[in-house]
Amino acid sequence: MKPDRVYGRRPVLECLRAAKRQSHKLYLLERGEGLDSIREAANGIPILYVGRKDLDRLAGGGVHQGVLLETEPLPLLTLEDWLAQSPPQTALALLLDGITDPHNFGAMVRSAAALGAAGVIFPKDRAAPLSPAAVKAAAGAMEHIDLVRVTNLVRCIDKLKQDGFWIAALDPDGDRPIWRADLTGRLGLVIGSEGKGIRRLVHENCDLFLTIPLPGPLPSLNAAASAAIALAECLRQRQDQE
Amino acid sequence: MKPDRVYGRRPVLECLRAAKRQSHKLYLLERGEGLDSIREAANGIPILYVGRKDLDRLAGGGVHQGVLLETEPLPLLTLEDWLAQSPPQTALALLLDGITDPHNFGAMVRSAAALGAAGVIFPKDRAAPLSPAAVKAAAGAMEHIDLVRVTNLVRCIDKLKQDGFWIAALDPDGDRPIWRADLTGRLGLVIGSEGKGIRRLVHENCDLFLTIPLPGPLPSLNAAASAAIALAECLRQRQDQE
Repeated sequence: MKPDRVYGRRPVLECLRAAKRQSHKLYLLERGEGLDSIREAANGIPILYVGRKDLDRLAGGGVHQGVLLETEPLPLLTLEDWLAQSPPQTALALLLDGITDPHNFGAMVRSAAALGAAGVIFPKDRAAPLSPAAVKAAAGAMEHIDLVRVTNLVRCIDKLKQDGFWIAALDPDGDRPIWRADLTGRLGLVIGSEGKGIRRLVHENCDLFLTIPLPGPLPSLNAAASAAIALAECLRQRQDQE
Repeated sequence: MKPDRVYGRRPVLECLRAAKRQSHKLYLLERGEGLDSIREAANGIPILYVGRKDLDRLAGGGVHQGVLLETEPLPLLTLEDWLAQSPPQTALALLLDGITDPHNFGAMVRSAAALGAAGVIFPKDRAAPLSPAAVKAAAGAMEHIDLVRVTNLVRCIDKLKQDGFWIAALDPDGDRPIWRADLTGRLGLVIGSEGKGIRRLVHENCDLFLTIPLPGPLPSLNAAASAAIALAECLRQRQDQE
């Protein structure tokens, strides 16, 4: 498989620290400053010092901050693998339907990892590729959360239900505010894209349809902001129970 | 004053619809499609049809989606003007300290407008300029919420307190989770930048120090995600009281 390129200080540092995938080479900008913690985390991986032009080229124009790592691709789980790990009875999974924008995708993975979700599930198609841009937007979180890639999101929802998950769709036309639903058990939270929402077949298979009330003059939220709010509400309810 | 340039379909459409500022000229891409609603909203403003190169140049390389509007700058309020409008007893203001990234700035304005905040307050310096990129990230919300620019955030906080506002800082080292504080009255919510946080003098003048609990393996949230979560929690508490 083609090696992956991770750039940006935080993504590279977290990739090295998590050591979830094997790294091959670390490229650093000649005379780059503030790179000590990254050099330390490299821990034996060959370091190559290169000029800015070479680094720009390797990063394909991305904002590399003087750092680029050549590494194995991110390990992806199948749903079966993930369920075989026996997620806890309060496990929260984020299901992404049609999130094709890499920044939104990365931002959601970051919020999921920070707010204690157990995994992020996304379909093979209709999802942003795990590109350097998405990895950068996730600010290291891709290395720290289970990434589950499925062929078919509807079948995945069926299997999750069989394993005791409730499936909640975030839906502007939902029937209750997100804070009026019980979100404390095993839960799959489905987020669609800002423009198109959740696909019909996926939507039909959800158990709960939740809204974020938007009383303001322009009732429209960014998809990553919606996801952050919903994940935080799940966390609030879980902590309230403790 | 130099006219402003707004680009992108949604920002332009909302700018025309809100009619908060006077527009001079609307540039549309020759043979551009799906522009009917924008043409309608233009309502007498001269329309110029131009080629892609001209539009790219006018937008300074921004993603214009075939649409650019030349308009007056966004109207900004002073704190005195804003307080003279007598914000309601549940008014929520978002105070931005050191949010210099235009995407984060725009995203926060968008969340504030959608989740029912009464205004966004930011200092003259240490804030992202209200550039086309910030306006684009706000997806039209800049036209729909009070934008209050102050010279000194500390003095602004003093005046807000005199007007019955409590000032709550979002702070990773705060003393209680955001959902364990009463956020229902007049409230100023202070958000700092991801790297640097809230400045010392601003911080010292806050009444409450709130955290978003982050139980995950990488306890770090994007500043715009944090703002969205905090704004939503304020809304939840207000709606619970109704």
